[in-house]
Amino acid sequence: MNKTSLSHHISRQFNEELEDVRNKVLAMGGLVEEQIENAITALVNADVELAERVISRDYQVNALEVAIDEESVQVLARRQPAAGDLRLIIAVIKTITDLERIGDQAERIGRMAIHLAEMERPKNQYSELEHLGTQVRKMLHNALDAFARMDTEAAVAVAQEDIKVDAEYEAIMRQMITFMMEDPRNVKRTLDVMWSARALERMGDHACNISEYIIYLVKGKDVRHTSLEHMEKQARD
Amino acid sequence: MNKTSLSHHISRQFNEELEDVRNKVLAMGGLVEEQIENAITALVNADVELAERVISRDYQVNALEVAIDEESVQVLARRQPAAGDLRLIIAVIKTITDLERIGDQAERIGRMAIHLAEMERPKNQYSELEHLGTQVRKMLHNALDAFARMDTEAAVAVAQEDIKVDAEYEAIMRQMITFMMEDPRNVKRTLDVMWSARALERMGDHACNISEYIIYLVKGKDVRHTSLEHMEKQARD
Repeated sequence: MNKTSLSHHISRQFNEELEDVRNKVLAMGGLVEEQIENAITALVNADVELAERVISRDYQVNALEVAIDEESVQVLARRQPAAGDLRLIIAVIKTITDLERIGDQAERIGRMAIHLAEMERPKNQYSELEHLGTQVRKMLHNALDAFARMDTEAAVAVAQEDIKVDAEYEAIMRQMITFMMEDPRNVKRTLDVMWSARALERMGDHACNISEYIIYLVKGKDVRHTSLEHMEKQARD
Repeated sequence: MNKTSLSHHISRQFNEELEDVRNKVLAMGGLVEEQIENAITALVNADVELAERVISRDYQVNALEVAIDEESVQVLARRQPAAGDLRLIIAVIKTITDLERIGDQAERIGRMAIHLAEMERPKNQYSELEHLGTQVRKMLHNALDAFARMDTEAAVAVAQEDIKVDAEYEAIMRQMITFMMEDPRNVKRTLDVMWSARALERMGDHACNISEYIIYLVKGKDVRHTSLEHMEKQARD
């Protein structure tokens, strides 16, 4: 085997390792998406069994975080990647932290679903949470898609979507405060709705973080803590 | 210059770079500690000016996160560290994310302090939040100290402390629910207290995360998502 074919071989193996890490992130993201969907369905349908499944499955999300983290550090140690490859590993390490936190929030909603299943149901069957949950899940889906395709424009669109999610969250909070003031017997149930809305809003923030890492990965620019306009500019440049 | 002195020189410079990154993490931690302290003081003393200072200083925390992150990635690219050095850089990248989130929570408390300053004060002047805040700040202080001294036993003690913080948080929440049910006019003020307590509880979780990274850094073991007993065992082994 001559030197060229060896280095080609090593490089192909290296590429496969990077590809494997990327695929695992997408698999973890898919699992987290499912957790969000099931948590919301459990809450809306008062499905305690499904809520319990969400809670017990969170360990799978955690296990994936630990496994991908370890694999990433091994790639750093063995391959000493530079430039784009290094940024990919850094983006992966950060992305899985946010995915794990989204998973925690889904578990939290699962717990709220169990509380709420025991209480009187409102007429709208928590449609406001269902709507917010659908939007947030779509944000995460689009962020993972943008990560898979290294699409910075799609990443910016995720951050833009978060403005709507925040506005919807604020509207839910204001409405819940009114409910509480109207009838103190609503307090416990309304608090659970508030915590669930808050969990969804936080998920949106984590999806935004992921979209920021995509711009870092593709453009090498750190757009955290900057304005949406700045992010848009960096994504296009 | 012979090869040995060159490699010694390079290694000394490398050591200095690692030392610099470590020191910057500790400086960032010190700033975040101050932000917690000021946010709580502002809330307890209805000091709107101090609260605004906390809010406007959050950009310093963010800027440190971005700077340390960049420096860490540069060390990875230039030095291709292995073993303990690599774990240090990974632990740093993770630690500053948690420090930044603690900073966000301090900013959040600053905002609550401004709301609460406009409302009627309770007799106890929010002493429950002051007490919880002091505990959480101590947790962070001890976590940073453990990081500086690479002290895994001290890191475990931080995680142990979080049990008390969680219990205190739960007690505050229960009391606040009672207040709300007793008098709906309390709703808005009580919600702000709840959000502040929640922010403090989250800070405690972030301090715990940092203590987990210390065990990873020193022992090479990932103790996230495991029991406190397991963490204790790994810290001692």
